Amino acid sequence: RRGEMAKSTQLINNEVFRAYATYAAIVLLKMMLMSLITAYFRLTRKAFVNPEDTEAFGKGEAAKKFLRTDPDVERARRGHLNDLENIVPFVGIGLLYALSGPELSTALLHFRIFTGARILHTLAYLIPLPQPGRGLSWAVGYSVTLSMAYNVLKAAWLL
Amino acid sequence: RRGEMAKSTQLINNEVFRAYATYAAIVLLKMMLMSLITAYFRLTRKAFVNPEDTEAFGKGEAAKKFLRTDPDVERARRGHLNDLENIVPFVGIGLLYALSGPELSTALLHFRIFTGARILHTLAYLIPLPQPGRGLSWAVGYSVTLSMAYNVLKAAWLL
Amino acid sequence: RRGEMAKSTQLINNEVFRAYATYAAIVLLKMMLMSLITAYFRLTRKAFVNPEDTEAFGKGEAAKKFLRTDPDVERARRGHLNDLENIVPFVGIGLLYALSGPELSTALLHFRIFTGARILHTLAYLIPLPQPGRGLSWAVGYSVTLSMAYNVLKAAWLL
Repeated sequence: RRGEMAKSTQLINNEVFRAYATYAAIVLLKMMLMSLITAYFRLTRKAFVNPEDTEAFGKGEAAKKFLRTDPDVERARRGHLNDLENIVPFVGIGLLYALSGPELSTALLHFRIFTGARILHTLAYLIPLPQPGRGLSWAVGYSVTLSMAYNVLKAAWLL
Repeated sequence: RRGEMAKSTQLINNEVFRAYATYAAIVLLKMMLMSLITAYFRLTRKAFVNPEDTEAFGKGEAAKKFLRTDPDVERARRGHLNDLENIVPFVGIGLLYALSGPELSTALLHFRIFTGARILHTLAYLIPLPQPGRGLSWAVGYSVTLSMAYNVLKAAWLL
Repeated sequence: RRGEMAKSTQLINNEVFRAYATYAAIVLLKMMLMSLITAYFRLTRKAFVNPEDTEAFGKGEAAKKFLRTDPDVERARRGHLNDLENIVPFVGIGLLYALSGPELSTALLHFRIFTGARILHTLAYLIPLPQPGRGLSWAVGYSVTLSMAYNVLKAAWLL
């Protein structure tokens, strides 16, 4: 199995790339989890946006009352959008960073801090924790991505 | 031409990677199509959000009535956001999956099912089809991405 | 340092890939800047969406008046979402394009035009410039991504 993998590409045998693949998959899965959380709140709060989604709950006028916004649904949706805004740059810049030849220990530090910060950000958003909890966890993740971008530009700069 | 490509990188000569590149490009183009569909509904329904966008349709008060929401525009926008939430994880995890050395036939199965499911999801959203049409097409695409993530973590796991 | 990089991967020594890494990092950083611009408008306009974010500005009823929308905040948020919708396809398709073996000069032309168009788009959105300024800058970036997608599919096509 390993032999086949090495044949198809050597990237996955590179330790920094394996670390990147692990953490990128974890934060993308965490982002995907937001879809399930939003769906859970939509179903338990009966708060939908598409008329065809309310048909299981009643006909005609009876169903229309479920076309409404709910604070918990909106909160989960904001957390999801914030993930898109922050995890997309991490995945894109992180890939370039992993290919720019950093030390494994430095790369792991970046990936682990970002992943921890984004998990805390989601908890801070959903519980919700008092500020500056959410703000700080956002800023930590943002700074990690900036640090990786600096390293990418230093290694790759070709305008 | 082929020779040059091989010189610059061997990835594009890897069949699994070529399959990934093909399907990733197709689903990203499908996502980009949502911009055109939204613009089409904005122009035909005359429903805009930026004051500067309404100036072609009248001056002052006459233009203000076009600053409004329209159900078709909002539906296309929700479809677009759902694409971002689902196609971004597919493109990110799919790249790592393609580099983790899967069998070509297994990889093609993943890529084809995801692509078909997302095209069905867009149709189900825009027509719209009665539920659970949209829900099922969403769940199929989501499951394909989970399956690829499982394979990535199995091959790359390095915490 | 270079030696280490070459050992871990040769991609970063490929000029087209280095150009891609540079411009992908720049447009992702530009997208991240939208978070700071939104936060700046939220703080200066005192317009928040999460109750816990207003606690620094007063207690109880006094804080509730800051739970409101503001045109500048909404404008920055729309610019950010438009970046997600357009920069994500660029980063994804651009990576595949960079690996498909284009001429360096052609690749640089694509990356530079896209990057310039998206910077203009942000300026056109935030100032705001009269239309068709924003529309044209959007269309130029969109066309560059389509051109790269065409080249990817031509090189990689494997359905």
